[in-house]
Amino acid sequence: MVTMKDIAKKAGVSATTVSAALRGTEGVSSEVAARIRTIAERMNYRVNASAQALRSGHTNTITLFTASMATQYYHSLATSLSYEATTQGFETRIQQSRFITHDEADIIRNASASQSDGLIFISTSLTPRQVLDCVGGKPVVMFENYMDDQLIDSVNTPSRRGAQTAIKHLVDQGCTRIGIIGKDTLPYNAYRPSPLAGRSRNARILAAQQAITDLGLPHAQTSCEDVDWSAEGGIEAAYRMADAGLPYDGVFCANDITALGVLRGLADRGVRVPQDVAVIGFDGIDTSTYSVPRLSTIALDYQGMARSAVMLLLQQINHPDTPSLPQTVTAGFTLEVRESSLRR
Amino acid sequence: MVTMKDIAKKAGVSATTVSAALRGTEGVSSEVAARIRTIAERMNYRVNASAQALRSGHTNTITLFTASMATQYYHSLATSLSYEATTQGFETRIQQSRFITHDEADIIRNASASQSDGLIFISTSLTPRQVLDCVGGKPVVMFENYMDDQLIDSVNTPSRRGAQTAIKHLVDQGCTRIGIIGKDTLPYNAYRPSPLAGRSRNARILAAQQAITDLGLPHAQTSCEDVDWSAEGGIEAAYRMADAGLPYDGVFCANDITALGVLRGLADRGVRVPQDVAVIGFDGIDTSTYSVPRLSTIALDYQGMARSAVMLLLQQINHPDTPSLPQTVTAGFTLEVRESSLRR
Repeated sequence: MVTMKDIAKKAGVSATTVSAALRGTEGVSSEVAARIRTIAERMNYRVNASAQALRSGHTNTITLFTASMATQYYHSLATSLSYEATTQGFETRIQQSRFITHDEADIIRNASASQSDGLIFISTSLTPRQVLDCVGGKPVVMFENYMDDQLIDSVNTPSRRGAQTAIKHLVDQGCTRIGIIGKDTLPYNAYRPSPLAGRSRNARILAAQQAITDLGLPHAQTSCEDVDWSAEGGIEAAYRMADAGLPYDGVFCANDITALGVLRGLADRGVRVPQDVAVIGFDGIDTSTYSVPRLSTIALDYQGMARSAVMLLLQQINHPDTPSLPQTVTAGFTLEVRESSLRR
Repeated sequence: MVTMKDIAKKAGVSATTVSAALRGTEGVSSEVAARIRTIAERMNYRVNASAQALRSGHTNTITLFTASMATQYYHSLATSLSYEATTQGFETRIQQSRFITHDEADIIRNASASQSDGLIFISTSLTPRQVLDCVGGKPVVMFENYMDDQLIDSVNTPSRRGAQTAIKHLVDQGCTRIGIIGKDTLPYNAYRPSPLAGRSRNARILAAQQAITDLGLPHAQTSCEDVDWSAEGGIEAAYRMADAGLPYDGVFCANDITALGVLRGLADRGVRVPQDVAVIGFDGIDTSTYSVPRLSTIALDYQGMARSAVMLLLQQINHPDTPSLPQTVTAGFTLEVRESSLRR
């Protein structure tokens, strides 16, 4: 790699002069600076980012950390986060632990060491306490910080209000026997056991159960299917429903991918959606707009979630000496009524 | 941030001893080394990755560079690449230009400067020549290096054989009027004009047209719909087909997302798939396995493509002094026959 010394030798000046010329510092005549820049360009000189980061202590980079990008939900979120960070002048890196090593904490330690100014956790199997231990004082924001001990700034999805809205919509469409599809744990715990697994019950499912109970409908406590939050899980749940003689006339699915699987599985069994069973999902991923039938869903405001997360992080980065209590922002959503639930 | 000097002071030894102890170098007694590691851990010491990269010249990191991660195709590829790199002991970073700045070349220059040992381009609007100019001698591998001047190691999708196989399958199912859906340019040129736009015609579409011609079927030269490679493009094409009185009994779609849009659009118009029109896609994305109907497709071997790309890159990284002629690997595929085209 070409160094400043190489350029200095070629230009017949000192390395300090080269450095000043390339950085645009005063004290170098514009003629000399132009000549040095031309030589640097011809020699294909590259700024050494490691050296630059070492000098300034700043990288203008945000690391997005996630256990997985395997679903459209994480992917939509990462895309929005990347966009928002750029708007604020930061470059973004995406790191996926799932495919790097089995030791998530080690990856985070390396990532946080000096490669970025702050971290945003889209999903992780670590608790907030474990995350804090890993990041070594770096600014950090989490998504879905479900723990009772609110240690870290976080952006949460509107699980409770979203699920309530979905259940109410099914009832408004005339459904009287409502089922819930989706495993009653956090989705990212599917990857490995963690301290979160035993403690947190899924907020979306809990809220849907509560809404069903509050409306005085039957089956509320026994309607939770034990399937993965995936298309395969949805297909399996649909087969079980059909084989059990269709105990539900409306189903709330924990996320859109599961709901798309339910649509697929019901089609296999000749069950009509929404006539026999109305289906609603949660997330608002792109596929829900063109599935057959189109999927009704609780569509999350990804841009708003991303903006909130970046703003919370920038506050920590720009004001390291004014610590404040951890803040929680809950994202907005809209009820998108499409073919899969429209019965009236 | 805690430095080695801080640890040295606390431990009552020199910074050199601390460095040796933490790196496991010989010459420090195991008792002293253990004591220093304990102190470092208590003080929450982090290795400074920028300093480490500056010293060694190696980062053990591969940067995956892409204009966009907005489709499941890029996403499946990035996931496989990340996995393969990990298997080879490399960490992966994903950089998306689309959301960082309008100057793709600048991003690449920064990324290649000293943050990674090599770059893999999943998609870019730059020509191979422009890519070479940007990366400053760093090892680099491209996907879909369509240009005639083969300057860079590359992994290509099996466009020609894949499209031929798909057309032959439609004919085997009894189709006699075959249409092609998808704009006749490279998909990533949708984002901005580039030198590639005028020169390359899409290999998948060209091969499908050729196969239709070779089989002596009609409409081969006029069947190419001018729609985006997207679900919206597919829906639009389906509406046009239906409104034109269904000139085709089989359609080849340039990618799976477009094909899923076609399924959606035909459903809107009450056209039955595969009875009235057989549909086949290209890529083998996950959604094709659970769409209604399930989508027949040319499924790419993502793992094989990723393995080839990483191997080509490692050869450049590990043997910088033995340059060889640029190599091209073409990935494997399988014909997945599902409901959307199964008429016999």
